[in-house]
Amino acid sequence: MPPSSPRWPLLLAAAVLWCSSLLAAAPSAAAKVHHHTWDIEYQYKSLDCFRKLAVTINGEAPGPTIRATRGDTVVVTVRNNLGTENTGIHWHGIRQIGSPWADGTVGVTQCPILPGETFTYRFVVDRAGTYLYHAHYGMQRVAGLDGMIVVSEPDGVVEPFAYDQEHTVLLMDWWNTSVYEQAVGLASDPLVFVTEPQSLLINGRGRSNYCSPAAPLPTLFTAAPGKTYRLRIGSLTSLSSLSFQIEGHSMTVVEADGHYVKPFVVRTLFLYSGETYSVLLKADQDPSRNYWAASNVVGRKRQTPSGLAILSYAAGNDPPRAPPTEQQPVPPAWDDVAPRKEQSRAIVAHPDHAVPAPPAADRTLLLLNTQNRIDNHLRWAINGVSLRFPATPYLVSMKRGLRGAYEQRPPADAYDYRGYDISSPPTANGTVASAVYRLALGSVVDVVLQNAAMPNGKNETHPWHLHGHDFWVLGYGDGKFDPERDTGRFNLRDPVMKNTVPLYPMGWTAVRFVADNPGVWLFHCHIEAHVYMGMGVVFEEGVDRVARLPTSIMGCGRSRGLP
Amino acid sequence: MPPSSPRWPLLLAAAVLWCSSLLAAAPSAAAKVHHHTWDIEYQYKSLDCFRKLAVTINGEAPGPTIRATRGDTVVVTVRNNLGTENTGIHWHGIRQIGSPWADGTVGVTQCPILPGETFTYRFVVDRAGTYLYHAHYGMQRVAGLDGMIVVSEPDGVVEPFAYDQEHTVLLMDWWNTSVYEQAVGLASDPLVFVTEPQSLLINGRGRSNYCSPAAPLPTLFTAAPGKTYRLRIGSLTSLSSLSFQIEGHSMTVVEADGHYVKPFVVRTLFLYSGETYSVLLKADQDPSRNYWAASNVVGRKRQTPSGLAILSYAAGNDPPRAPPTEQQPVPPAWDDVAPRKEQSRAIVAHPDHAVPAPPAADRTLLLLNTQNRIDNHLRWAINGVSLRFPATPYLVSMKRGLRGAYEQRPPADAYDYRGYDISSPPTANGTVASAVYRLALGSVVDVVLQNAAMPNGKNETHPWHLHGHDFWVLGYGDGKFDPERDTGRFNLRDPVMKNTVPLYPMGWTAVRFVADNPGVWLFHCHIEAHVYMGMGVVFEEGVDRVARLPTSIMGCGRSRGLP
Repeated sequence: MPPSSPRWPLLLAAAVLWCSSLLAAAPSAAAKVHHHTWDIEYQYKSLDCFRKLAVTINGEAPGPTIRATRGDTVVVTVRNNLGTENTGIHWHGIRQIGSPWADGTVGVTQCPILPGETFTYRFVVDRAGTYLYHAHYGMQRVAGLDGMIVVSEPDGVVEPFAYDQEHTVLLMDWWNTSVYEQAVGLASDPLVFVTEPQSLLINGRGRSNYCSPAAPLPTLFTAAPGKTYRLRIGSLTSLSSLSFQIEGHSMTVVEADGHYVKPFVVRTLFLYSGETYSVLLKADQDPSRNYWAASNVVGRKRQTPSGLAILSYAAGNDPPRAPPTEQQPVPPAWDDVAPRKEQSRAIVAHPDHAVPAPPAADRTLLLLNTQNRIDNHLRWAINGVSLRFPATPYLVSMKRGLRGAYEQRPPADAYDYRGYDISSPPTANGTVASAVYRLALGSVVDVVLQNAAMPNGKNETHPWHLHGHDFWVLGYGDGKFDPERDTGRFNLRDPVMKNTVPLYPMGWTAVRFVADNPGVWLFHCHIEAHVYMGMGVVFEEGVDRVARLPTSIMGCGRSRGLP
Repeated sequence: MPPSSPRWPLLLAAAVLWCSSLLAAAPSAAAKVHHHTWDIEYQYKSLDCFRKLAVTINGEAPGPTIRATRGDTVVVTVRNNLGTENTGIHWHGIRQIGSPWADGTVGVTQCPILPGETFTYRFVVDRAGTYLYHAHYGMQRVAGLDGMIVVSEPDGVVEPFAYDQEHTVLLMDWWNTSVYEQAVGLASDPLVFVTEPQSLLINGRGRSNYCSPAAPLPTLFTAAPGKTYRLRIGSLTSLSSLSFQIEGHSMTVVEADGHYVKPFVVRTLFLYSGETYSVLLKADQDPSRNYWAASNVVGRKRQTPSGLAILSYAAGNDPPRAPPTEQQPVPPAWDDVAPRKEQSRAIVAHPDHAVPAPPAADRTLLLLNTQNRIDNHLRWAINGVSLRFPATPYLVSMKRGLRGAYEQRPPADAYDYRGYDISSPPTANGTVASAVYRLALGSVVDVVLQNAAMPNGKNETHPWHLHGHDFWVLGYGDGKFDPERDTGRFNLRDPVMKNTVPLYPMGWTAVRFVADNPGVWLFHCHIEAHVYMGMGVVFEEGVDRVARLPTSIMGCGRSRGLP
């Protein structure tokens, strides 16, 4: 399946889409500029009754929620006070149209921000929805540098659902170990895994086994009977896939990753790291008592206490923060994949807000996900290549023609999908490289992620996240993807657009995107340990069209001394 | 005491000294180039029975000993594999004549070395002696990135003493906490001190309270009866002043900080962080048994178990690593300063190797050491200024005229030495700044360090270390230095040259140096917590004479984008 030249009708369609997205992004007369100044530093925090260092934003971990209206500009001035450690912040779900240097992906779009330095991110939030931000440097996100971004529709724009009030719900997992300890374990031979998390956090508060039973629980929110609430829920777990339940209440899913979806009702919402959802919850239960909100690990054998918070009713009998006397909701079986796949398939575009997908791809990448032993270390590889970020950010080296700064040989578009046995441990070794897929600007690209057995014979769920774009989710399948058989089964009728999508055990996931955003963009598993171990690929498109790069993203590797 | 213009006869003398040192440094036909490639990474180490992360060099903590002959060139290529943390390595005691960019002091002479990057240090070792190297970035040295440098005289050059064999002895203190935890505590309000060390290490091995009594002890060395050994002893403690004893043996001090001293005999050697000594030990005791070598904390209330190693005799009856059955040597009282001052005063130049000091200074700096509360933090200040390193290294910003990169107002040459009461806590607040003392090239500079009461009324010993130079140690005094009274009492007869010198509680220490090494040089307390809290000053001299700076030291702060 070699790369073909772009089909021009599609390119035209893509260009139209692109232009309309640019128009949507263009600040209107009413557009505002939101300035934030963030001091990043370590502080001792007891988020789950265990006191440890967390990376904080203005003293908070997780950080504050950024709020803006579609078309606004967000300016975040980041001061790194971490002492000896660098940083960089990714605005997860923001496509950075026209500002690829503000994506915050260290090694891809910028040099790290050094201690003592200040870096300014400036970008337009060009679409309403629920987004995230987090450190994108090594495994630094494990230390708590994250938060949510809420982009509202401008006044007068009606969303396809109604609610009385909204609340944010940020889900995380948390450890008593440091990023350094985790990373050293992962790079060791034999590998020492990060362990299951010590706790699950809801809005930055959790209950580890270090907590006394009397430790107070956070309030999710206080409901007024009969009212409808929009919960903007995001997962920034480092490792865990989650279920989220609110005892006694059902939730209507209305948004996913910034796109309106055809509403569907769940009792349990599954979230993978990097995903966001808006759900509507009607306060329609007995208002005299409190209710449990609970997050739980799924997909890996559950060893972590539930993340817990309390939904209370205004003027109810229970004190606002008192644990309900009722049993916590029964979490789904951790190893039952069926309901999770069912949810994934239920997420389709809202009929009134669907963006039609191009009917066919110009180029298809079949990406085999394997865990390999390379250079005496266990790593993840895509088509046999385990990604290592170069010392010079791709965006700089590609735009400025520093050819020695990254691997010039492109990785393979496909693996031997006819011969490869996905149910057996990998036999080949793979290589570590900083290779790049160079995409024709405006071309339509299909990516089919293929899961396969690990060396231990097992298989995991991987949430893949694309920077700089949304993709249409064309389908999920079990077993091995067969281009001849399965391409025809893609959902082109009502595919939802997302930026993060799960790849299920022993299955495949197909997405399509238009390579219409000049820049260099990471596509990777959103599990911190996995991308740290090489589980990602890099896309370049139209880097020659990128405007003059700001000097502030340079200074490292071969970009030292560039004027 | 305002700065005066250089006195030309002295300048001439200094120039002669400088040229002769350059000649000494010039590689002869026999000079060698020693290449080292170091991978810097975190690894789990159990140096004192407690397993924690240490920063390692090629897997070792402490790192390997660098060995060279006077006039050789040492080239160390450092690869930073620390993940998200920068580094920089200082070659402690090497004056870097002609290579001021290789001093390794992040923020002063270079930008930090970023993860994924490689930096090459290249310098001439222009004088025989015992030196050190260590991380010079934040408090990173606490994590173990250090080691020794041994520079021998060329063949045929006779030293003023004789010995049969030599061994290195690196003394350290060690914690179960990380640099990050320590630094956050120090920057907190109220300040959380780093605590006394958990153990003392001898050549990288120690015995904390986590050790079982049966934990093996390291061997200091194995002696042959009747032979004489040179021990090159260096202290790279982060906090502690130390005593060092070898049970039953006396030690003859023959070298200090790379200078031959008039030999004197001790039973207990005191060492401050950053100091090195060579001592001769004659294996003249009962060869049938083993002997204790012990380091102990002095100057602070002792809470840390002794650092222990074993001196065994070849063919003795005890197994080489068996603890002696005899009692460990009784350490000196921790709070008895008298014998420590006595040792300091005993260190004078070897008559045949004395470098005469210029008879008078062109400029005298009276530097008051105070602990102050500044901006809600407890910090150290010198004449009221607490040093904060700028984001752009001084060497780059001064050489390239980036005036906004550091504080332009110079700090004061003197404090109000007539009015200040050194026995009372400081009353003024002080400021945090990146100010610089600009010295006339070739001028003779006296620095008198003045100790004073801390806010808690107490007083500590501070080992001050000068980069880029050695200084003559002109004297130590009790109480407050009085220029009129005390300058005339300076030892100009046989002052030793050193690079690190203690400032004793409630006393003063006077040193003299010739500002003859074009560059920018840090002068600071060698206690990691203290320099982190601002206890240092920066000297510039002849930066216009510095050759073209290598691009590799740039890339941070305002040096981003410099061609």
